[in-house]
Amino acid sequence: MSEKPISRFPVPRLDTLPQDIRNRIGAVQEKAGFVPNVFLALAHRPDEFRAFFAYHDALMDKRGGGLSPAEREMIVVATSSANQCHYCVVAHGAILRVRAKNPILADQVAINYRKADITPRQRAMLDFALKVTADSAAVEEADFARLEPHGFSQEDVWDIAAISAFFGMSNRMANVTNMRPNDEFYAMGRAPE
Amino acid sequence: MSEKPISRFPVPRLDTLPQDIRNRIGAVQEKAGFVPNVFLALAHRPDEFRAFFAYHDALMDKRGGGLSPAEREMIVVATSSANQCHYCVVAHGAILRVRAKNPILADQVAINYRKADITPRQRAMLDFALKVTADSAAVEEADFARLEPHGFSQEDVWDIAAISAFFGMSNRMANVTNMRPNDEFYAMGRAPE
Amino acid sequence: MSEKPISRFPVPRLDTLPQDIRNRIGAVQEKAGFVPNVFLALAHRPDEFRAFFAYHDALMDKRGGGLSPAEREMIVVATSSANQCHYCVVAHGAILRVRAKNPILADQVAINYRKADITPRQRAMLDFALKVTADSAAVEEADFARLEPHGFSQEDVWDIAAISAFFGMSNRMANVTNMRPNDEFYAMGRAPE
Amino acid sequence: MSEKPISRFPVPRLDTLPQDIRNRIGAVQEKAGFVPNVFLALAHRPDEFRAFFAYHDALMDKRGGGLSPAEREMIVVATSSANQCHYCVVAHGAILRVRAKNPILADQVAINYRKADITPRQRAMLDFALKVTADSAAVEEADFARLEPHGFSQEDVWDIAAISAFFGMSNRMANVTNMRPNDEFYAMGRAPE
Amino acid sequence: MSEKPISRFPVPRLDTLPQDIRNRIGAVQEKAGFVPNVFLALAHRPDEFRAFFAYHDALMDKRGGGLSPAEREMIVVATSSANQCHYCVVAHGAILRVRAKNPILADQVAINYRKADITPRQRAMLDFALKVTADSAAVEEADFARLEPHGFSQEDVWDIAAISAFFGMSNRMANVTNMRPNDEFYAMGRAPE
Amino acid sequence: MSEKPISRFPVPRLDTLPQDIRNRIGAVQEKAGFVPNVFLALAHRPDEFRAFFAYHDALMDKRGGGLSPAEREMIVVATSSANQCHYCVVAHGAILRVRAKNPILADQVAINYRKADITPRQRAMLDFALKVTADSAAVEEADFARLEPHGFSQEDVWDIAAISAFFGMSNRMANVTNMRPNDEFYAMGRAPE
Repeated sequence: MSEKPISRFPVPRLDTLPQDIRNRIGAVQEKAGFVPNVFLALAHRPDEFRAFFAYHDALMDKRGGGLSPAEREMIVVATSSANQCHYCVVAHGAILRVRAKNPILADQVAINYRKADITPRQRAMLDFALKVTADSAAVEEADFARLEPHGFSQEDVWDIAAISAFFGMSNRMANVTNMRPNDEFYAMGRAPE
Repeated sequence: MSEKPISRFPVPRLDTLPQDIRNRIGAVQEKAGFVPNVFLALAHRPDEFRAFFAYHDALMDKRGGGLSPAEREMIVVATSSANQCHYCVVAHGAILRVRAKNPILADQVAINYRKADITPRQRAMLDFALKVTADSAAVEEADFARLEPHGFSQEDVWDIAAISAFFGMSNRMANVTNMRPNDEFYAMGRAPE
Repeated sequence: MSEKPISRFPVPRLDTLPQDIRNRIGAVQEKAGFVPNVFLALAHRPDEFRAFFAYHDALMDKRGGGLSPAEREMIVVATSSANQCHYCVVAHGAILRVRAKNPILADQVAINYRKADITPRQRAMLDFALKVTADSAAVEEADFARLEPHGFSQEDVWDIAAISAFFGMSNRMANVTNMRPNDEFYAMGRAPE
Repeated sequence: MSEKPISRFPVPRLDTLPQDIRNRIGAVQEKAGFVPNVFLALAHRPDEFRAFFAYHDALMDKRGGGLSPAEREMIVVATSSANQCHYCVVAHGAILRVRAKNPILADQVAINYRKADITPRQRAMLDFALKVTADSAAVEEADFARLEPHGFSQEDVWDIAAISAFFGMSNRMANVTNMRPNDEFYAMGRAPE
Repeated sequence: MSEKPISRFPVPRLDTLPQDIRNRIGAVQEKAGFVPNVFLALAHRPDEFRAFFAYHDALMDKRGGGLSPAEREMIVVATSSANQCHYCVVAHGAILRVRAKNPILADQVAINYRKADITPRQRAMLDFALKVTADSAAVEEADFARLEPHGFSQEDVWDIAAISAFFGMSNRMANVTNMRPNDEFYAMGRAPE
Repeated sequence: MSEKPISRFPVPRLDTLPQDIRNRIGAVQEKAGFVPNVFLALAHRPDEFRAFFAYHDALMDKRGGGLSPAEREMIVVATSSANQCHYCVVAHGAILRVRAKNPILADQVAINYRKADITPRQRAMLDFALKVTADSAAVEEADFARLEPHGFSQEDVWDIAAISAFFGMSNRMANVTNMRPNDEFYAMGRAPE
């Protein structure tokens, strides 16, 4: 198990953190079996931590709507790979494997989503997500029109854009802080069901 | 006064919004004399609205630290211009003019910050902000080292990165939603003191 | 009023200049109320000055043809923004505001012309101008074909290309010489009619 | 086990192949426990197959010299990721895990080698490899000079360049043929020793 | 001898042109033995023709100063190649061969000036010219400083920038008009002295 | 005749080389009248030399199929120019002139193949080759579909891709080794038939 620093900025000790943040961290630890490093690295700034995870949950824990949990993770993996974000590709690659119950999909999406085993609908979703990521100033009606035949609602389109935008922020914070993914993530979900 | 749509997504009527959001909007309207369109456009998603502005306030209303309010706005204008974000360049350009009490600085920073009337310290700050914006995966110790001689603390560096990252998200949302800046912003702060 | 240098190269005193150049500068001063700095900065090289403004006038003072004076300025502002030219965006932004009698159009075109309040015809014109600016080697018949439905004549197309090419040169000279726009330009034309 | 096509071009049946190619494929099958798809996809062109693997072996099976087998694979993974080559990142990621006896290094190198757990010497090696991959026309003496302090011999430098160049070719063939990595590769070498 | 069109725009008959333009064309024909197509293609617009060649002559026929005639042509060939300008690379490649009395230099400079048989001083000159061509907004004092050790005067620097800027315009016009180089240029100056 | 080094790596003396390599070099010398430097530079590594030229011959000396020898060389020249490879543009430009019996085609293809005197079929071929060269990860069925109307067989498509990929490797080796083209190549094939 590595003992490398998980952030180039100070990482607070758990017992020094405000209670609401400790609760949040406790909850995820219980569920995952370990504390994902993003919770510790961002806890350096409690107010930003609260806003970050409130935003995250609004986008990623949303139920209903046209995007499945696995599809939401596909957007995270594809856009985080475009931003070369170590933490997000590794951690959300693991979550994607688990949610999609597919041990190879996350690597496919990370390397080149155009060659991944995905549906044409998912391909259109990721094309849009990548354009938001790489050149949002050029997004226009033609891009929205390409989503329509696949049955995405207006709310789905907002979700694709917002997930891409939010993780674009997250990728930048992880890249600047040298946020290190937990070793546990690498192997998670790799055994076929 | 234009009557063009302010978002390509639905914009809620004020009286349909949750009370906390109406309060927030009322407060800004009282201060600015009008409701900046970002509040209305993002109110389409109340949970995301709350997280967005909590994050925004943690970064932009922070007092103390090494970055002045005007410098925070310079980061917003320079990075939003790199992302060609209509809303953010216009609205935060106005705020920068007001905070810096300088009628020409915002246009300078938006067009080419390298030629703006800024200090070497501000130049280093914006160089870092732009690297976070354009190529965060390549940020490394040499980049941090270039900030040090200018007296930026570790917390200041986090601030520069976090403001760049947050507005990178904001720029993408504004670009995708075709968020339209209020006409009021264009002329604000242009009369020399 | 700033007293910063207007060029990193020597700027001649007016009374040392050849009479034809003094006449030209006198005429613009009478019309504008001040001497735009480009006239002083380029007067360092009288022969180049004469050729530059002869070329400029042939393209920008042309009357007749399918492009209005405001549309010619829109091309200048959009392409100069792509080249991040401080002088040209500020000075021609002012002229565009005046010629279009529109206080917000120039900022819109400079930040992201795709989101500006322009007609589909103007959008096609600027798409072509930007392709000439950014990748002229790839201009081909398909690009000309996209202009045709909008009624641009062959001479109009030459004008769009030539204005883009000429200001591409002008942008490079202004960028290398650190040509500083007069402070007067920033506020010009911002009061609504 | 997937039954998706392994190439968009015809894939020959093993029993139709020339004996030397069957021998080569038999040998790798014995060693790996399965036939990596690159052998089947390229066997469509026996002469190119022979040249390809002769070249491959000269570079990758070389013993002696300053580059370890794991370092050779690191070059393959980093450059193949820059070229977004599905087959090569997955297959050589597996080989890198095995050769380095490290279950997480390959993903680190693929996502952003600058953040990987590698030595400064390996970092310099990969910087050079990536420059050969992305902008070989700009390689100059300053690039060679950056390798010297790390003790790379002239022959090592040739090896770094040649491996990068060879896999640049391989990446392009795999991308154009839609070469599909065997499912076996994804999990290989992931269990910690 | 090819009979392909020399421009996608109308090309005037010589006898319809104003006398001063016919004189200019007559002079070049006498000197070169043929009429370079740029004179015919640009004569479509007499005022622009006059300004173009006045500018050209001020920069390229200048005598004295630190740049030799061959060096001026090297700038044209290197920057025109970056802009992939058919006419300018072929025509000025020929002139460079003649002026440098060197049958291979022009091809070297066009393909990759970093590998050409040029002096370190010429290399610095072309590095600056290429930066003006590709990213003039980022030109700053460090770029000027790199020219100084090679003895370039301030006027030489202006010349390098102005030649790069002028031919950037010329390249765009040639690319948009499909300006075709005369067949005579290809072989000119190729026989070693 | 220049006496500049032909490689920045050691170049073996002919009489020290294995017999098969000497034979191969003797054959090309007899045919061309001189030894192209690529044979000497790559002979530094005999095993790689053998694989390189076996691959080369399988692709370039192939007879039959839909691509003529001149078309194969057009692919080499266009892709090598995109990679700014001094050796390959000069040497294969010469071969293209000879094979196409056309003294100007090679320069046209090298500078901007979109403006060259080629057929629509050859244009489609080079568009595909350039995409393989510059962005092979994005090659997809739409790209293959654009080749079909021109009658390219599946085997022709493989050839276009493989030639582009192989010379992408060759370009990188030539760029890194500073491989110098023989002076003889520059003038070869320039006299019209």
